[in-house]
Amino acid sequence: MNIHTLATPCALVDEERMAHNIARMQTRMDALGVKLRPHVKTAKCIAVAQRQRAAGAQGITVSTLKEAEQFFAAGFDDILYAVCITPAKLAQARALQARGCRLSVIVDSVDAAQAVVAAGQGLGVLIEVDTDGHRAGVLPDSDTLIAIGRTLHSGGAELVGVMTHAGGSYGCRDDAALVAFAEQERSRCVAAAQRLRDAGLPCPVVSVGSTPTALSARQLDGVTEVRAGVYVFQDLVMLNLGVAKRDELALSVLASVIGHQLDKGWILVDAGWMAMSRDRGTQAQAVDHGYGAVCDAQGQWLDDLVMVGANQEHGILAARDGSVTRDVAQRFPLGSRLRILPNHACATAAQFPAYSVTSGSAAAATWERFGGW
Amino acid sequence: MNIHTLATPCALVDEERMAHNIARMQTRMDALGVKLRPHVKTAKCIAVAQRQRAAGAQGITVSTLKEAEQFFAAGFDDILYAVCITPAKLAQARALQARGCRLSVIVDSVDAAQAVVAAGQGLGVLIEVDTDGHRAGVLPDSDTLIAIGRTLHSGGAELVGVMTHAGGSYGCRDDAALVAFAEQERSRCVAAAQRLRDAGLPCPVVSVGSTPTALSARQLDGVTEVRAGVYVFQDLVMLNLGVAKRDELALSVLASVIGHQLDKGWILVDAGWMAMSRDRGTQAQAVDHGYGAVCDAQGQWLDDLVMVGANQEHGILAARDGSVTRDVAQRFPLGSRLRILPNHACATAAQFPAYSVTSGSAAAATWERFGGW
Repeated sequence: MNIHTLATPCALVDEERMAHNIARMQTRMDALGVKLRPHVKTAKCIAVAQRQRAAGAQGITVSTLKEAEQFFAAGFDDILYAVCITPAKLAQARALQARGCRLSVIVDSVDAAQAVVAAGQGLGVLIEVDTDGHRAGVLPDSDTLIAIGRTLHSGGAELVGVMTHAGGSYGCRDDAALVAFAEQERSRCVAAAQRLRDAGLPCPVVSVGSTPTALSARQLDGVTEVRAGVYVFQDLVMLNLGVAKRDELALSVLASVIGHQLDKGWILVDAGWMAMSRDRGTQAQAVDHGYGAVCDAQGQWLDDLVMVGANQEHGILAARDGSVTRDVAQRFPLGSRLRILPNHACATAAQFPAYSVTSGSAAAATWERFGGW
Repeated sequence: MNIHTLATPCALVDEERMAHNIARMQTRMDALGVKLRPHVKTAKCIAVAQRQRAAGAQGITVSTLKEAEQFFAAGFDDILYAVCITPAKLAQARALQARGCRLSVIVDSVDAAQAVVAAGQGLGVLIEVDTDGHRAGVLPDSDTLIAIGRTLHSGGAELVGVMTHAGGSYGCRDDAALVAFAEQERSRCVAAAQRLRDAGLPCPVVSVGSTPTALSARQLDGVTEVRAGVYVFQDLVMLNLGVAKRDELALSVLASVIGHQLDKGWILVDAGWMAMSRDRGTQAQAVDHGYGAVCDAQGQWLDDLVMVGANQEHGILAARDGSVTRDVAQRFPLGSRLRILPNHACATAAQFPAYSVTSGSAAAATWERFGGW
């Protein structure tokens, strides 16, 4: 088996690059003195998480209870479900915990805390803290933080700690901004933990994380664990942010040329938005990579090209500079193969039922992944 | 089972609306004197295609060979694979044909025609015609059209006809533009067929289609069949185009409220881009519906709200007019349920492994769908 015989489109994972990315993050977290709890929502793949654990990761983070169930069935028993839980999901969470899973959930309201208390003991609970205004969580200096803590603790729930996700870091424009964002994430989450402790409440865990901040933090004093997901594959958004290098991009989509429009200089491939996703995460960044950056079958960048358009099963590749190159049919004949690098690895990976894993130039294995809820 | 006990997020299909959409399109095609060959890439669901067939559809259109295999296994044996075929996929296509499937493929180059000829007889072949410049196909007045026809015919391949897809119709701004676009699609494809016939080549089939043009065409003289996909569910893009009405939108995503950000007037739900997709097809249309329009659990529009942001498993709902409504937690308490209407049904449906089918206010059935290649 080699990449010239794989059916296209397919998701290629470069095993050496992924191993490098795993080691890089683990080494960094070890040096900063924190545990790494990888977010498995990126790959949704047991084989990937096993490699993260073998490298030193402790526990995993999930974005759905289906992920929790799938990974628990595969032997991962320390799981943080990092999306605020709704009352209707508590029975499913409790069932998982009753089977032996050390499952923690998160809340960001007194209402949710009361629902967790009412569901009975067993689940760990973290309070989500909003450190950058981008999504969920309570402000670290809010009265609500303490009210949630008291609701949980007095109700008999296990108040594990606080957590935050600095997703706003994706909007940073340079290294200095990233370093400052990481420090903001750290300091605000640590401050929230301290306020809980000052109120006489337990808060052993201080959990922060996003790939950009994890790879930019200068120190993580007061933090006990970091969560990050996309680092395992990296992608064009991370490349633009400066937290990944070209030779760290481990996920690509292998596509075949299905035609040309010579008068426009277009190359049509069999990877459209169904394969790449509709993610346009680089649109507002320094370099807009359209629906994906183009490499040859061996993974060498073809810097003059970009995926400019995507229909369901058609990708349109054209010159980045808008010029019309007339030799596209000679350079990329019908049936030739290209790799397309995704803007956002989580979104692109989610379009595929499995990864074709490459080692060097060989297709070495197939790793299943799952989707759905 | 009712929609208040379904696990969220899930894809809801309103069975009555879908049946109406199927009947509407079939009635229209019957009146215009053409066959309807639905594009099953939208739903990728046997139960849906069975209803289209029962209503009068003849044959199906697919976007991948996996769809061809899945639908053939379910008893659909007249299939058009409507993405230009690459040489490496011919063996798989031939194997399907050898098992009894009446499978047609499409080409838009002499190179592809030669590859089909070299693969041996049995597959039907249509030539893709470019009638709007948006994607693939040969120009109807090009020498290449005739060269492809001669390559196929003289090589012993079965030249079934010509086909086109006026995907550019999605960019129309009013009814008059749609009517004109439909006529352009028709007339250019018919002209290509006539040129083949004038050159002494067979061209029994003239296949056109897209949902907007199918629902806008005043006459289809010279056309033998129409392909359309998204009409079965309809969506916000079609609503903006004026070819669907609100009470025809059959697909929605059922979501649960997981939190609020009161100072911003945000409602957070458990349907993010993993559920909705990243499709922003209404962005450049008359009404930008963000990541989706918001309805209550019964499907009544909440016109003041829209999904303004999407993370992987978080959707952010807020006021359309940018105002901060302070009563969001009272209106939509934790755990309450909302339906989100998608911009593009094909993209949103693709995120789910199954549909929860509703009839009236009851959840009546679960229909599997498939993904991948």
